[in-house]
Amino acid sequence: MSGYDLVTFGETMIRLSPPNFRRLEQTHLLEVNVGGSELNVAVTAQRLGLRTAYVTRLTRNPLGRMIANKAREHGVDVSHIVWTDEDRVGVYFVEFGASPRPNAVIYDRRDSAMARIRPGEIDWESIFTETKLFHTSGITPALSETATAATEEAVKEAKRAGVKVSIDLNYRARLWSREKAREVMTPLVESADILLTTEEDTARVFGIKAESYEEVAKKLADEFELEAVAITIRETPSVWRNTWTAIVYAEGEIFRGPKYEIEIVDRVGAGDSFTGGFLYGYLTRGPEAGVNYGVAVSALKQTNPGDICWATPEEVERLLKGGGLRIVR
Amino acid sequence: MSGYDLVTFGETMIRLSPPNFRRLEQTHLLEVNVGGSELNVAVTAQRLGLRTAYVTRLTRNPLGRMIANKAREHGVDVSHIVWTDEDRVGVYFVEFGASPRPNAVIYDRRDSAMARIRPGEIDWESIFTETKLFHTSGITPALSETATAATEEAVKEAKRAGVKVSIDLNYRARLWSREKAREVMTPLVESADILLTTEEDTARVFGIKAESYEEVAKKLADEFELEAVAITIRETPSVWRNTWTAIVYAEGEIFRGPKYEIEIVDRVGAGDSFTGGFLYGYLTRGPEAGVNYGVAVSALKQTNPGDICWATPEEVERLLKGGGLRIVR
Amino acid sequence: MSGYDLVTFGETMIRLSPPNFRRLEQTHLLEVNVGGSELNVAVTAQRLGLRTAYVTRLTRNPLGRMIANKAREHGVDVSHIVWTDEDRVGVYFVEFGASPRPNAVIYDRRDSAMARIRPGEIDWESIFTETKLFHTSGITPALSETATAATEEAVKEAKRAGVKVSIDLNYRARLWSREKAREVMTPLVESADILLTTEEDTARVFGIKAESYEEVAKKLADEFELEAVAITIRETPSVWRNTWTAIVYAEGEIFRGPKYEIEIVDRVGAGDSFTGGFLYGYLTRGPEAGVNYGVAVSALKQTNPGDICWATPEEVERLLKGGGLRIVR
Amino acid sequence: MSGYDLVTFGETMIRLSPPNFRRLEQTHLLEVNVGGSELNVAVTAQRLGLRTAYVTRLTRNPLGRMIANKAREHGVDVSHIVWTDEDRVGVYFVEFGASPRPNAVIYDRRDSAMARIRPGEIDWESIFTETKLFHTSGITPALSETATAATEEAVKEAKRAGVKVSIDLNYRARLWSREKAREVMTPLVESADILLTTEEDTARVFGIKAESYEEVAKKLADEFELEAVAITIRETPSVWRNTWTAIVYAEGEIFRGPKYEIEIVDRVGAGDSFTGGFLYGYLTRGPEAGVNYGVAVSALKQTNPGDICWATPEEVERLLKGGGLRIVR
Amino acid sequence: MSGYDLVTFGETMIRLSPPNFRRLEQTHLLEVNVGGSELNVAVTAQRLGLRTAYVTRLTRNPLGRMIANKAREHGVDVSHIVWTDEDRVGVYFVEFGASPRPNAVIYDRRDSAMARIRPGEIDWESIFTETKLFHTSGITPALSETATAATEEAVKEAKRAGVKVSIDLNYRARLWSREKAREVMTPLVESADILLTTEEDTARVFGIKAESYEEVAKKLADEFELEAVAITIRETPSVWRNTWTAIVYAEGEIFRGPKYEIEIVDRVGAGDSFTGGFLYGYLTRGPEAGVNYGVAVSALKQTNPGDICWATPEEVERLLKGGGLRIVR
Amino acid sequence: MSGYDLVTFGETMIRLSPPNFRRLEQTHLLEVNVGGSELNVAVTAQRLGLRTAYVTRLTRNPLGRMIANKAREHGVDVSHIVWTDEDRVGVYFVEFGASPRPNAVIYDRRDSAMARIRPGEIDWESIFTETKLFHTSGITPALSETATAATEEAVKEAKRAGVKVSIDLNYRARLWSREKAREVMTPLVESADILLTTEEDTARVFGIKAESYEEVAKKLADEFELEAVAITIRETPSVWRNTWTAIVYAEGEIFRGPKYEIEIVDRVGAGDSFTGGFLYGYLTRGPEAGVNYGVAVSALKQTNPGDICWATPEEVERLLKGGGLRIVR
Repeated sequence: MSGYDLVTFGETMIRLSPPNFRRLEQTHLLEVNVGGSELNVAVTAQRLGLRTAYVTRLTRNPLGRMIANKAREHGVDVSHIVWTDEDRVGVYFVEFGASPRPNAVIYDRRDSAMARIRPGEIDWESIFTETKLFHTSGITPALSETATAATEEAVKEAKRAGVKVSIDLNYRARLWSREKAREVMTPLVESADILLTTEEDTARVFGIKAESYEEVAKKLADEFELEAVAITIRETPSVWRNTWTAIVYAEGEIFRGPKYEIEIVDRVGAGDSFTGGFLYGYLTRGPEAGVNYGVAVSALKQTNPGDICWATPEEVERLLKGGGLRIVR
Repeated sequence: MSGYDLVTFGETMIRLSPPNFRRLEQTHLLEVNVGGSELNVAVTAQRLGLRTAYVTRLTRNPLGRMIANKAREHGVDVSHIVWTDEDRVGVYFVEFGASPRPNAVIYDRRDSAMARIRPGEIDWESIFTETKLFHTSGITPALSETATAATEEAVKEAKRAGVKVSIDLNYRARLWSREKAREVMTPLVESADILLTTEEDTARVFGIKAESYEEVAKKLADEFELEAVAITIRETPSVWRNTWTAIVYAEGEIFRGPKYEIEIVDRVGAGDSFTGGFLYGYLTRGPEAGVNYGVAVSALKQTNPGDICWATPEEVERLLKGGGLRIVR
Repeated sequence: MSGYDLVTFGETMIRLSPPNFRRLEQTHLLEVNVGGSELNVAVTAQRLGLRTAYVTRLTRNPLGRMIANKAREHGVDVSHIVWTDEDRVGVYFVEFGASPRPNAVIYDRRDSAMARIRPGEIDWESIFTETKLFHTSGITPALSETATAATEEAVKEAKRAGVKVSIDLNYRARLWSREKAREVMTPLVESADILLTTEEDTARVFGIKAESYEEVAKKLADEFELEAVAITIRETPSVWRNTWTAIVYAEGEIFRGPKYEIEIVDRVGAGDSFTGGFLYGYLTRGPEAGVNYGVAVSALKQTNPGDICWATPEEVERLLKGGGLRIVR
Repeated sequence: MSGYDLVTFGETMIRLSPPNFRRLEQTHLLEVNVGGSELNVAVTAQRLGLRTAYVTRLTRNPLGRMIANKAREHGVDVSHIVWTDEDRVGVYFVEFGASPRPNAVIYDRRDSAMARIRPGEIDWESIFTETKLFHTSGITPALSETATAATEEAVKEAKRAGVKVSIDLNYRARLWSREKAREVMTPLVESADILLTTEEDTARVFGIKAESYEEVAKKLADEFELEAVAITIRETPSVWRNTWTAIVYAEGEIFRGPKYEIEIVDRVGAGDSFTGGFLYGYLTRGPEAGVNYGVAVSALKQTNPGDICWATPEEVERLLKGGGLRIVR
Repeated sequence: MSGYDLVTFGETMIRLSPPNFRRLEQTHLLEVNVGGSELNVAVTAQRLGLRTAYVTRLTRNPLGRMIANKAREHGVDVSHIVWTDEDRVGVYFVEFGASPRPNAVIYDRRDSAMARIRPGEIDWESIFTETKLFHTSGITPALSETATAATEEAVKEAKRAGVKVSIDLNYRARLWSREKAREVMTPLVESADILLTTEEDTARVFGIKAESYEEVAKKLADEFELEAVAITIRETPSVWRNTWTAIVYAEGEIFRGPKYEIEIVDRVGAGDSFTGGFLYGYLTRGPEAGVNYGVAVSALKQTNPGDICWATPEEVERLLKGGGLRIVR
Repeated sequence: MSGYDLVTFGETMIRLSPPNFRRLEQTHLLEVNVGGSELNVAVTAQRLGLRTAYVTRLTRNPLGRMIANKAREHGVDVSHIVWTDEDRVGVYFVEFGASPRPNAVIYDRRDSAMARIRPGEIDWESIFTETKLFHTSGITPALSETATAATEEAVKEAKRAGVKVSIDLNYRARLWSREKAREVMTPLVESADILLTTEEDTARVFGIKAESYEEVAKKLADEFELEAVAITIRETPSVWRNTWTAIVYAEGEIFRGPKYEIEIVDRVGAGDSFTGGFLYGYLTRGPEAGVNYGVAVSALKQTNPGDICWATPEEVERLLKGGGLRIVR
């Protein structure tokens, strides 16, 4: 298939988490979800109304199939996934915390099928026919040397096909050093049109700091010649209660999203849902809609268990209109 | 049987809710409870010490039996339930939320056995022998044309038998329009002795508004010549944390209940528990006890999963005495 | 989309079943699955390798979305589903038994969105472009008068488009009488190319009986001028242990499938999986492959919880080669 | 209340059992049921149609209330239960096995409220007004010296009031020796009209053995001048698969019940359900109906988790008519 | 074995708690944990790095084994446990609350194996060879007269062997009166080197009150000639959110621990974890480390379900360094 | 510590399995157990009465700790485990089947901490002081080249210290070829005193076949100069029902164990439990006791969920005496 509004590219892992705030060491059951930054983006965007495809490399076994199945469950096209009989499906564990114990994540992702991807395995030319936007995150090139090359190939092919490029900086200290990240991410972000990030990641990877979020966004847009820069902003007075908002710099202007008090059910994947919502709004109605949809849908995401957002467009609209907290009957 | 302190009349449905804040779309398990405004009232009152009966119409299948069983589990008499081999047992779904996502309810109640009730099916004359109070809510006549007629019949029979009538206004926009509600509810409330409601329902159904809750209560008492009017008052700063209180106007005076900070486990059915507690207190000790018992028992209810209140008289007494939040050993 | 090997048409309901052999009356949890004869067929066929689409009518709410999602999860195309804001999603309850208590099913499907379907709502012409086979069951026309008409329309459109028609007789006594079923099903089966049934349904609907399964199949093929007739055969010495096989009459010959001893995890949907496997084998390799794939995949299905088959082609091949019962490592 | 068909008297405990064949030592969850021989009898009889009451002594705490609630859930009258603030509610643990590991039960029942019952605490005179039958088991007098006296009082009062007496021998080696049991049970059974037992218990307590079950029943009837003697017969070729039947000697004749192959979900309480079904059939239609109802309802019981029988009269009738193992739709 | 840093002595019970804020009366499942003040102390200290042993008396059945197993799971030595075929394992039930409903505990511990312990059953002489510290709580002597004597014996043996003695006052009103507690505890605390308590218990047992926590600590140290006195301090603005800290008086100085806002998962056992952490810090680095480790580890404990602390030394260090609430990856 | 009856050496993984016969692809929960052939052996032997230690290499994270904890839970000494901050803990998935679908296992164990073990990391000299027997399986050397060398080192050190060596052939085709296995295992088995195996593994690795199990055992004993050879024998008429027995050749004689019909709850780890039981019996009472204990304890194991055996010595004795299938009260 082809003709996508959005194509995302990256790794999805099986996520295992003990129920009811149990520690891993004490649990006898694990809840199973799938989670991957770029899959999360695609699902949110698809649920809001974009036509999306998700590209990755998966081992042909029940765990690999589960990942593709869950993407399909939300309507994301998976026909370009590369299947292999080799390698493995990465796994990660999430322990949900309570103040003063933060959430904790343990990754077991080495040598996964996606980390072993090599340039030339994906037919980007046919995928990018009539595609509007390509999205990946800083996690994808960080997976391995070959994954770096495969990411560079994807971005180059996108540019060649006239497809816009969106990148979430998403720095993962477990995967690479700040120096290595800067070296690889600099040309990738230079090729990009849209950047999504946090103030902290920007400082860690690019050393860019400023007095305000707004200044950071402008600096990034200038330095990398970006069409739009989005920064998500979280305050964590406690583990179970956060505030959440974002700003976007685009068209020479700052757009501020709404700010929500969030009772946290599961904050993992919030940034990805922001990206999915932002890209939906941005592609269909511009930067102001982008930041509003992004913040609202990702606020709702944090009230669902699992990395993936289950909100509907109607719920996002309701929240943006200030829907209130009474029972919806 | 006969000789009840309280007889309630209305529909109970099977309530299905995903555990752990899951969305319906993502759940693989549903918790099963039974829930119905008038059943909830009867259970609370019975647990506190009244002799109660619950009257409804149920399909003779496991779901119908489950509803009768649960009423019996709390000691509510079910010997006057009308059983049929026709129709169905209504179902509703509750999705529990977290700020900024409110709780949501989806009803699937059309053509239920209770919606198909007709006047003449219940032997009110024998039920009302030595009964003190009859209670129903605005949901019951809203179920269907025949249910309206059956409700009118019940109220008429109560008056004829010298049984006091209590009505919870409980407006359900999914079931009827405000106009239709006003048309039906006006004569019913005029026949009643006690009215339980919220400021919002009063405004929606009767168009009665005022500067304060107290004024609303007085206006209602005056307009409908009521012996007592109770208004429950909830503030929802967040989904998981509410405040809860109530006022009662009776004997020409305003009685204010205590106000509680509530950590919400399940707020569905709180108003009904208030009614059960109020009627218990009012019938046994007067309006001040009514509002105190009502608020305290319904505050405790909101810390139990399910529509139904599992508090004991001792717990209500303890809370009214300012029991504190230390572990009870 | 278009270009399907198989398009199926019918109702899917939310299936609710108590875990661990609990009775409905005693359960506090329900497992949630989706189940519908024609969806089950499509999923099995898709998993084995056909390109399938599933057509139905669904209410636009979380329950309706869950049904479409689960079809998509397996790769079944759902782009032709008709969505409505009216009506409801049907529900059914399954109690799993143990000898001497059989499994029991309670339906609550009246007035569902699919029962309210009307001719003209589906664009069969575009769906049937390049489609090879259309499948429905005797449940679909039994849902309502309008559903009968919509089924007749679909079959007529299939014939007009040169699409083969497959019908599972699937008599449901709760939905219509034998007489009504015979009246409606006779012309439908006469239009069909393939019939799937059981000896018992054939006797109940068409009054066709014979000395042997083989004779029944031949009689049906002759009377309705069918290209292929498949009969599934189950023996139930106990609730937890059954034997399972099938025969097919086609090309003037009887083809017998393998016979399996089955330790029953969930037998609901076995016939549908047979159909999905049969159609896969029949379309790709002929009647002998059809009966083999059909029996093997549906034997495996009965070891999965839920109506839907999760077997893979590799597992079916392994079983057909006599894979044995040792641990697969 | 009064006017019962059947009044039963004995202890009910909280039953705790690990799910999924876990050993106690390895479990992290326990399923909660209530179980007591005489409660089980009352529930089965009530569900089949008798008006029953259950008499016991319970500690006034949530565990005690749970026991009364569960009796009420099935419609059994609990208004004669003696409540105390002293003592405790007994607990027992069940580990479900699989061949060659049998089920195992651990009791922790010492000093329970019922073991501490004393003569004079129950107003038998008023309970027995218009009551037809009184039932208890050999467990009740075995609980303690005072419980022996209280049981003797109950039987004496029953005789005085013209109420028939039924006794289940139910020998528990953990509670008393064979000698002590014989000493106490002999006069009790001599006062009884109906005896329910197994061949093994008869041999252990009374030393009565014979060539056949039929002979044992006759001997017992002769020796204790009983109106009816019922013996249940179980074969256990494996833990998960048993056969089950019973015989009754009454009116000078042997009546044999049907024999069922049972896939065991939970065999605990089977004998009690037999008693409930037998007493229902015997009181309403005589010994043949007694043995048939008893065997059928208790066969169904063994397919339900928990000590308590959830079968309906319709299901019992269906089974007695040879209902078969096909799905009931 | 011998050569312990810490030996603790007391009762452990099986703890049963309904999940998801259910009331006991409404639950169908119970979570199983083991809980005992002195076991909790040993586990925390062992996890932080001390070599510990736990001494108790247990019935030789699966429940007793579960308790020993869980101690061993954390590396606590159990080779000195006294096993008996008599008596029982105590049980307690915890209902988790939500404001305004506090947590509630129901004990069923009478006649447990540990309550039946007698002096002379434990070989303290060999246990105390090369042991540094002995710890028990005010619960142990409160269990029974013989347990009082056994506790006195243990303390006397510790003093004789030159082992330091630590006592947690831990007053349990269900077990004994304030007068009896004072009579028994006074000489025990006089023999002790370290006392852990709360302001409230101190007032209840010894009648010691003061203007400040610090004054109370000093008074206790003076009156009982103690080397160190620790007081834990909890504020409970709501059931789900508490603050937690402690002070220690030692070496003529007050040491104040950090103060944490805690989102309560399970506060039972917090004081015991404080003791375990305090003893670890105190023995290895002195009173300041003691109060810091004690507060930090017990703050983390309150975010784990179960009485037992699952924190690691690294997590405690991280918290003491002000680790923050971001996801730990 | 030292002075063990039995020291085992090998890898343990985290085992994840869907509940209730779910396929991995369809599950939302996974049950967590730990499983490793040599750990299973140690646990069974420890539970029966030997003093055991388990040696492995583990990553210092919650998964590694869980494995050590579970060994400790049963009393197995873990003080010689090698901890590392590198590598990972292996994981495997078990899908439980039902006829005709066999159980299936998916391994994800590459690059685990144990596969990365190197000679010289373990202080065998001190471990083997006063140790009686060393046991490992063919899985351990198959993990990697360095693991082969480490296994060879362990066996050499055992021989040098005069410790008997026991080896379970345990061929894993996923880990190495038959040729490689034969090359490595031949000298290891030549160094061994005791061999445990199945007829099939013997044929695959050594090409040894014979007319009967007895002949195979003798051939092995002769060829490798073994003191004892044990062969376990399973028949699998269905997935849920197997028969199980074993023979041992020792002292020039064949000893046959009892044969059990087993209702399978979880057969994984049965062979390991046999080994644990055999070694217990063999070391304490000789080959006849060995085969009897081995078969009985491993029959009981198959009725427990998880790889690990929870039987007690009393239960094994009871089964060997022909305990029967009645409820144990």
